[in-house]
Amino acid sequence: MLIFMVVSIAGSISLALVTFSRVRKMDSGNELMREVASAIQEGAAAFLSYEYRTIAVSVLIIAAVLGVLFSWATGIAFLIGALVSALSGIISMKIATVVNVRTAQVAHTSHDIEKTMKCAFKGGSVVGLSMGGFSILGLLIIYVVFGKLFGQYDASELVIQDNWLSIPFIPFATTVAGYALGCSVIAMFNRIGGGIYTKAADIGADLVGKVEMRIPEDDPRNPATVADNVGDNVGAVAGLGTDIMESFVAALISTIVVGSYMFFAAANGDTVLPIELVHKLFLYPLAFAAAGLIASMIGIFYVSLKKTGKSLYRELIISINIAGVVAIVAAGILAAVVFSGAETQVLGFRAGGASPWLCASIGIIGGMIIGRFSEVYTSYDFQATQRTAESSREGTALTLIQGMSSGMQSVFPPVIVLAGVVVLTLELAGIYGVALAAVGMISFVASTIAVDTFGPIIDNAGGLCEMADLSGEARDITDRLDSIGNTTDAIAKGFAVGSAMLGTVSLFVAFLYTQVGWAEVHFGENIILNLIDSLTLAGALVGSALPFFFSGRLLEAVANAARRMVTEVRRQFKIDPAILSGERKPDYRQCIEISSIGAIRRMKGPAMLSLLFPLGAGLILGPKFVGGVIVGAGLTGVVLAFFTANTGGIWENGKRFIEKGRYGGKGSPAHQASIIADTMGDPLKDTIGPSLDILIKILAVVALLTVSITRHYNLLALIGIE
Amino acid sequence: MLIFMVVSIAGSISLALVTFSRVRKMDSGNELMREVASAIQEGAAAFLSYEYRTIAVSVLIIAAVLGVLFSWATGIAFLIGALVSALSGIISMKIATVVNVRTAQVAHTSHDIEKTMKCAFKGGSVVGLSMGGFSILGLLIIYVVFGKLFGQYDASELVIQDNWLSIPFIPFATTVAGYALGCSVIAMFNRIGGGIYTKAADIGADLVGKVEMRIPEDDPRNPATVADNVGDNVGAVAGLGTDIMESFVAALISTIVVGSYMFFAAANGDTVLPIELVHKLFLYPLAFAAAGLIASMIGIFYVSLKKTGKSLYRELIISINIAGVVAIVAAGILAAVVFSGAETQVLGFRAGGASPWLCASIGIIGGMIIGRFSEVYTSYDFQATQRTAESSREGTALTLIQGMSSGMQSVFPPVIVLAGVVVLTLELAGIYGVALAAVGMISFVASTIAVDTFGPIIDNAGGLCEMADLSGEARDITDRLDSIGNTTDAIAKGFAVGSAMLGTVSLFVAFLYTQVGWAEVHFGENIILNLIDSLTLAGALVGSALPFFFSGRLLEAVANAARRMVTEVRRQFKIDPAILSGERKPDYRQCIEISSIGAIRRMKGPAMLSLLFPLGAGLILGPKFVGGVIVGAGLTGVVLAFFTANTGGIWENGKRFIEKGRYGGKGSPAHQASIIADTMGDPLKDTIGPSLDILIKILAVVALLTVSITRHYNLLALIGIE
Repeated sequence: MLIFMVVSIAGSISLALVTFSRVRKMDSGNELMREVASAIQEGAAAFLSYEYRTIAVSVLIIAAVLGVLFSWATGIAFLIGALVSALSGIISMKIATVVNVRTAQVAHTSHDIEKTMKCAFKGGSVVGLSMGGFSILGLLIIYVVFGKLFGQYDASELVIQDNWLSIPFIPFATTVAGYALGCSVIAMFNRIGGGIYTKAADIGADLVGKVEMRIPEDDPRNPATVADNVGDNVGAVAGLGTDIMESFVAALISTIVVGSYMFFAAANGDTVLPIELVHKLFLYPLAFAAAGLIASMIGIFYVSLKKTGKSLYRELIISINIAGVVAIVAAGILAAVVFSGAETQVLGFRAGGASPWLCASIGIIGGMIIGRFSEVYTSYDFQATQRTAESSREGTALTLIQGMSSGMQSVFPPVIVLAGVVVLTLELAGIYGVALAAVGMISFVASTIAVDTFGPIIDNAGGLCEMADLSGEARDITDRLDSIGNTTDAIAKGFAVGSAMLGTVSLFVAFLYTQVGWAEVHFGENIILNLIDSLTLAGALVGSALPFFFSGRLLEAVANAARRMVTEVRRQFKIDPAILSGERKPDYRQCIEISSIGAIRRMKGPAMLSLLFPLGAGLILGPKFVGGVIVGAGLTGVVLAFFTANTGGIWENGKRFIEKGRYGGKGSPAHQASIIADTMGDPLKDTIGPSLDILIKILAVVALLTVSITRHYNLLALIGIE
Repeated sequence: MLIFMVVSIAGSISLALVTFSRVRKMDSGNELMREVASAIQEGAAAFLSYEYRTIAVSVLIIAAVLGVLFSWATGIAFLIGALVSALSGIISMKIATVVNVRTAQVAHTSHDIEKTMKCAFKGGSVVGLSMGGFSILGLLIIYVVFGKLFGQYDASELVIQDNWLSIPFIPFATTVAGYALGCSVIAMFNRIGGGIYTKAADIGADLVGKVEMRIPEDDPRNPATVADNVGDNVGAVAGLGTDIMESFVAALISTIVVGSYMFFAAANGDTVLPIELVHKLFLYPLAFAAAGLIASMIGIFYVSLKKTGKSLYRELIISINIAGVVAIVAAGILAAVVFSGAETQVLGFRAGGASPWLCASIGIIGGMIIGRFSEVYTSYDFQATQRTAESSREGTALTLIQGMSSGMQSVFPPVIVLAGVVVLTLELAGIYGVALAAVGMISFVASTIAVDTFGPIIDNAGGLCEMADLSGEARDITDRLDSIGNTTDAIAKGFAVGSAMLGTVSLFVAFLYTQVGWAEVHFGENIILNLIDSLTLAGALVGSALPFFFSGRLLEAVANAARRMVTEVRRQFKIDPAILSGERKPDYRQCIEISSIGAIRRMKGPAMLSLLFPLGAGLILGPKFVGGVIVGAGLTGVVLAFFTANTGGIWENGKRFIEKGRYGGKGSPAHQASIIADTMGDPLKDTIGPSLDILIKILAVVALLTVSITRHYNLLALIGIE
């Protein structure tokens, strides 16, 4: 099994390397293109290193705290997680900035939409395959070093320890939770920082450029253009890559945490499970994830090899579907290899040996259905977006109202799917089943990232075409591909949110076990969260408002930085008329700085909120309150994530529908109305939406890690109230 | 006690009558004013009667179903509730349409802002006092007829009956729940129907009039003007009046339902409470509500008598605060009169005889704090709204983003207050304490409605000034008063949402008791809702998406009707240029019809969803699922209600801040941007926000009423799964 995993990882990383070196050799265009491209690359690299330096101290402090509270292993695992995530961000950004200019050149020289698409998709695949490979590799290292999974596996790693202030916890679960937290924290900073950066630049560029001056998107005369394109790499590539990778790791970790707890959960009444069986509980999701890499490679091959004539968009969707189907088959084979029927009986699985396979498959299928719903709501091939575009004829206000109405309704179907997944998997294999579904939903992660990174690469390529003044045809090609990228973005978001929700449920149950305390309850017994407890109810209320507050802070950060950007762009146009006439270049750097400073300054608050709130609340009001917070935040977090992602997608694609020539086309009043709605939707879908799934996971992980402390040491207990 | 209540009711209704007859004698202006006013009155009356006729059959069917399932008493109580609510809607609308024209005339002749304000406030008081009086009167009738509260009170009314298909339920609690449901259903239809009507007209009028043609608000040349003013009466007056009255009744009912259940809940281990004590559990909140009427009268007197020099807005807030303080004092006196220390010990109250008083007071104070937060976020005297107005200089998109960011953050403080209220009252007096806090929060309802109805009356008076071409000074006065009305609106909404949340918690606990079944658990024991049950968790997920879906449907209805309105207004301007030049009158009736038809057609779906969803889900998936739905919908419903109400308020008052002359004032680009944001916010704050608190209460009441059926008869139980 170890060999299988190592082969998958090695396979995906070497495929990434081969593809990358091939792309690298492609023509990177004329002097001007290379110049602009390297400006974008430098800007993105500068921001990421600025960001990482800013948070380095915080990360080290967290690692130290974890090390002191739990074990040096937890602290180091946290650092490894943070490192893998940070590296992934840098690598993916680097790849995207190499591929974008080559994609532009392909569009320019070939005038072939299919070739352009395949070039951009290659870049996406490199990002996807390397992210996927790295995240499993990181986990494997944790296993080998701390869990001793292979060879001399040690049951003592699972035994409850009463070492620190006699708080019971499970060492191995704590260590892997540390790793997940490391990935999550970096992903959170990347998502928030990148999200603020990119939207401040984007909105600033659009408001003055497109709305006031009526110059095209990415026009080199616009001082905020380079910042906008840097933002795509920082927010959409590095942010998205680390985000989906974090979702993947969190889903895997939740199976391991639940598995560790199940050590004590023999369904047949024994005190503990045989250690080999626990071993298998860890092994299955990990092997399945490795199989997911192979499934993704097959999906990616499909796109690369197929000579397509028809819809390019369909090809991308088919590639995801192929990856999903292969993953389902692989999950079945692995389940048969790993578990025997007798073992699943000991574990209490309802459908015997097929249970793990069924749970993983339900997750995969659930993810695909959710993706399909995202598509139906946000693609302009369907009614919701078309009707929003149509409303633009009646002005901005009705565009906004119509789009928001569809966005609000779009929340319902995916949540029903999630509810179905939860019911089925809980019945089939208990909370371990839910965790497996989370892994399933995100298993073909490399494929998802590939399809999703495709978007910002194309976006950048389009920007390069415009800035390097390439032929209009090249720009047309990138524009058409760009709208595909928007919908795939919403689809990928669906997978991430769904998986986050399922993973949170698993982590939350582990939290509940620790809260109640091992002395009082073991896994086989019914564990409950009583919502009618006053503190829990209060926690649920406060928790339900938390994602709104968090989102509000992000929006405010975007608005602040964007306002500064608008002022700066207006100022440049005003003081030097030669900029608008194209005779003199604007000062791009000033705009890059506004975005950077705005993002760095404002990203700390919301990120720290997610880390410190569960800890602080736990130390004051105890774990019952924190349990309520997780429930409340989880529920509103999920619906708010779907709402913001889909509403933003609807407004953006509504605009694109008009740009295709409907309702007056480009430059018409309807188009102007749709641009404003799109601008409003930008921070919803690119800043808030992508951060919420990380928020709820960080809340759950921190709650889990700290509950062993807060359940004994909190203010209420101290003054004798609880 | 009975005498005290009858005196309060009689006092408030006669004060309303006296005030009304005085206002009626005031000058109703010139011919043109009277003509326009009567057009508005007719339009509003026509819509309400159209609406009531449309829903009459549904109401009768529900009554029949309740009668058959539970008892004829429940069916009749439902009808009485519906009737009282419908009558209140008609009466309040009638009063407002009489007062509006007289207020305009006062503004016109006196040019005195204080006199104008007092005239409008008199109208509001008449509405408030009569609504308050009626709702307690209706409840008293239910008591006297069905509960035999006074005189020969009968314990058998509380005994669990196993009559219908051997389902246990408490007859009296079921009857009062029927009454509450009657009020809620009418309020729901009024809110949704009125909300769609008024916003379709408002948006249609604004988009073509203000944005495209740049003619002022309420300009008689605008074909949608009359419909817009009719809408104020239908949506803001009738809708708001029945809504707050419904909140009041629901809060009272929740104390009675909880009290009925407490019959079985003696804290000292007896099987049942002494019947006299249960009697007192009913009596206290009712007497307290009657005292609230008196408190409101004192608050209203303060405004009428005071010769004010300073801020009129302060006077209104002070009047609410006076009413609140008087209510606190009254709650203390009544608690001392009603309960003895020994009795509160039997009931298990923590702070002895002071407990009911403390709970009621915590509710009152909590409501005031929430109101203050609404003010801080939505009034343009504070930062949030000012900053949104400032962002208008950077265009529409940043106005939207900045306003939404503040609206999202504004959710946090009131929810924390609610959480505090829940914790404190639960600890003090159990779930009965939470119900008392709900009553407290809404106890000075007459005062709240008075301050709140003031807004639409002024709005209408302003419209009349414009349409009857009165002096600009008159219009200035109404404009200045109008912005006061906007903030008081957000404050009143805070009370309603807070009280709804607390009332829902109480009803929900009653639901949990019935769900578990009387054979298994009695009140003294710990009742739990286990969120880790798969069906409950699935229900919570689906429930959390329900308010979003519901809101999306409402927004869509508004968008549809508004689009038609825009088309019609544009058509009229186009085919007849004499309309814009003022030579010919537009066809007002066509626009009234568009609003009416749009509202009636689209109100049924969302209203029926709230009624049928808990029933349908219960019959298929059973009460565990429904319990989860109530939790999920309650949590997201509350935060979404605060979010929509405050965000809409921020955008509207941001616009008004600019109209006061900031950032270029009226007609500037900033003003145009703020008008679009305000238009987007209109359906948020006037259609969605006000409906959500009714939604969560209807869900809870229907769940409570039907749980005795669904817990035995549901599809899962039938096929043997659960």
